[in-house]
Amino acid sequence: MKVNGVPFRSLWQTADGAVEVIDQRRLPYAFATRALRSVDDVIDAICTMAVRGAPLIGVAGAYGLALAMRRDPGDAHLAEAHRRLNASRPTAVNLRWALDRVRAVLAPLPPPRRADAAWLEAARIADEDVELNRALGRHGADLIAAVHARTRRPVQVLTHCNAGWIATVDFGTALSAIYQAHDASIPVHVWVDETRPRNQGLLTAWELAAHGVPHTLVVDNAGGHLMQHGEVDLVLVGADRVSARGDVANKIGTYLKALAAHDNGVPFYAAVPSPTIDWTIDDGLAGIPIEERAAGEVREVAGLDRQQQRATVRIAPDETPVANPAFDVTPARLVTGIITERGVAAPHGLGALFPGRRQAA
Amino acid sequence: MKVNGVPFRSLWQTADGAVEVIDQRRLPYAFATRALRSVDDVIDAICTMAVRGAPLIGVAGAYGLALAMRRDPGDAHLAEAHRRLNASRPTAVNLRWALDRVRAVLAPLPPPRRADAAWLEAARIADEDVELNRALGRHGADLIAAVHARTRRPVQVLTHCNAGWIATVDFGTALSAIYQAHDASIPVHVWVDETRPRNQGLLTAWELAAHGVPHTLVVDNAGGHLMQHGEVDLVLVGADRVSARGDVANKIGTYLKALAAHDNGVPFYAAVPSPTIDWTIDDGLAGIPIEERAAGEVREVAGLDRQQQRATVRIAPDETPVANPAFDVTPARLVTGIITERGVAAPHGLGALFPGRRQAA
Repeated sequence: MKVNGVPFRSLWQTADGAVEVIDQRRLPYAFATRALRSVDDVIDAICTMAVRGAPLIGVAGAYGLALAMRRDPGDAHLAEAHRRLNASRPTAVNLRWALDRVRAVLAPLPPPRRADAAWLEAARIADEDVELNRALGRHGADLIAAVHARTRRPVQVLTHCNAGWIATVDFGTALSAIYQAHDASIPVHVWVDETRPRNQGLLTAWELAAHGVPHTLVVDNAGGHLMQHGEVDLVLVGADRVSARGDVANKIGTYLKALAAHDNGVPFYAAVPSPTIDWTIDDGLAGIPIEERAAGEVREVAGLDRQQQRATVRIAPDETPVANPAFDVTPARLVTGIITERGVAAPHGLGALFPGRRQAA
Repeated sequence: MKVNGVPFRSLWQTADGAVEVIDQRRLPYAFATRALRSVDDVIDAICTMAVRGAPLIGVAGAYGLALAMRRDPGDAHLAEAHRRLNASRPTAVNLRWALDRVRAVLAPLPPPRRADAAWLEAARIADEDVELNRALGRHGADLIAAVHARTRRPVQVLTHCNAGWIATVDFGTALSAIYQAHDASIPVHVWVDETRPRNQGLLTAWELAAHGVPHTLVVDNAGGHLMQHGEVDLVLVGADRVSARGDVANKIGTYLKALAAHDNGVPFYAAVPSPTIDWTIDDGLAGIPIEERAAGEVREVAGLDRQQQRATVRIAPDETPVANPAFDVTPARLVTGIITERGVAAPHGLGALFPGRRQAA
């Protein structure tokens, strides 16, 4: 997608062998990039959320292994790099999926051939991510078009967190559907949840504004009220992990929106490339680990001060105890459909869309 | 309640005839009071939320009429002051209730007697508010005690916004129940919703810390996840208006917590003094006006900067469209009970608790 008219991916290789990423902690206030030159750089970028979004974390992890192999392609270092990268964020499954895929390619190779093979495999995963998201966005755009065909009004979509192109290598997941509907002249308006504590909704608003998609920012508390008053035609989110039966782990607060959608007859969809599906887990509520993040994310809010300089304010004192679970799980019964690169399935129909995968679990 | 060991109400008369209030916009960062000397001062305090909380707004409105009468006790000025005060915040019904009550006392009186009568009536309303909240808190504490008797664990209560003593003249509504349970040695822990956009949860955390009640601050997105994992025994909120059939208008986002409570078998209670009940409306969703507030409340976040000075950061640019509905309505079907000064009623049982009121509508 374009930033100020210039086409960008959210991650790319540089001529000098680094992996360059958009530093998402500085968005939407500044557009800056950052070169990752070691596995430690990659882990730091993932942990601090300079790089975020389940699909992008997966690709970054793959490149992390490649950077590790360039330094030391031995078995012990491969195992260690895999373990450390995999632990950098526990909820998104794309990371484990990408790491396992690269390791499966590398393990049979003699160490001297591993670095090149890892770079190649990471690049393949990145390119595939783009194609998966393009494909799933087409299916999602069809859903939006169908609502418009029925209502003849601008389609009102509510989204939570950022499932845009910067959460992937390109196109995005939920926003891929919205971009493609918009580009096909389907009128769309997006309600953008702020998404406390890290306010990734601001990234979504930034993306939508750059692409010219009409949108309105709301606090996370507002979505239920909007749905009660017929202001939302569908809820469309990404996911960090979807269980085999269709339970959806996504940014904290998604479950509340799914409940409101269900209570008001509003369809609720998660848009996910297949690497986000964890075929080894059925019960997402019991099986998907939920990351607990630092209290500072709740206590401090970042923005711009009056001089337009990046600043943070502390809203709660250190003495105030804080809990900060980063994700929740929306049970499949509240999910209308999962949008994948192969089409849209009811949660219980995911296995039929990916017959080989399900059995492999 | 006490602030730094000194007993305070949230509003009181001064020796020189002003009405002094705690400036709630400066909490929790600074404790400052502000003298209201005219009806315009009162309207400004209500609109800017220096004075907030449905019960306290009602009392402040009554004093606003008293201040107006001291300046000009004529019929036209009475009508005008009533109209302007009533328009200052549309959702909380206590304001209209208190204004109507004072006006009913004043209207039959010759103008020269109105100012004194208005002061007297406003003081009566303030004192009654304290007693209503003390009484309803006792009933709420009984509910908390019953949970503890069953579980023998600290009772986990989730609350939204600030329904504490500063939202009333004293004691609070939801927090009155928590304070009284705590004071009766029932172990209670409170999950405090941040309550974007204005973060009144910080006021709640400040109150609870001052009273020594264990609590944990969470973002508004977290409550559903907590309930899914058995971390909440009951949800306890205040209200700005409750319809005759028990629909609960409260701070935006309350409905989402009620949905999560319902989905997880967690009881959901609203604690309200009877002046919060609007006997003229049955269908709260259709009948209760929802205030839309300024976009700046969403775009800017207040806190302390690194020098511990009050500061705001802008999180979204002016170009980002914002919607800011301040309240939502939780339908009676999601409400386990309404806690009033006369006891706890199922929503449909409210009329039986207040038989005279219902017929009067």
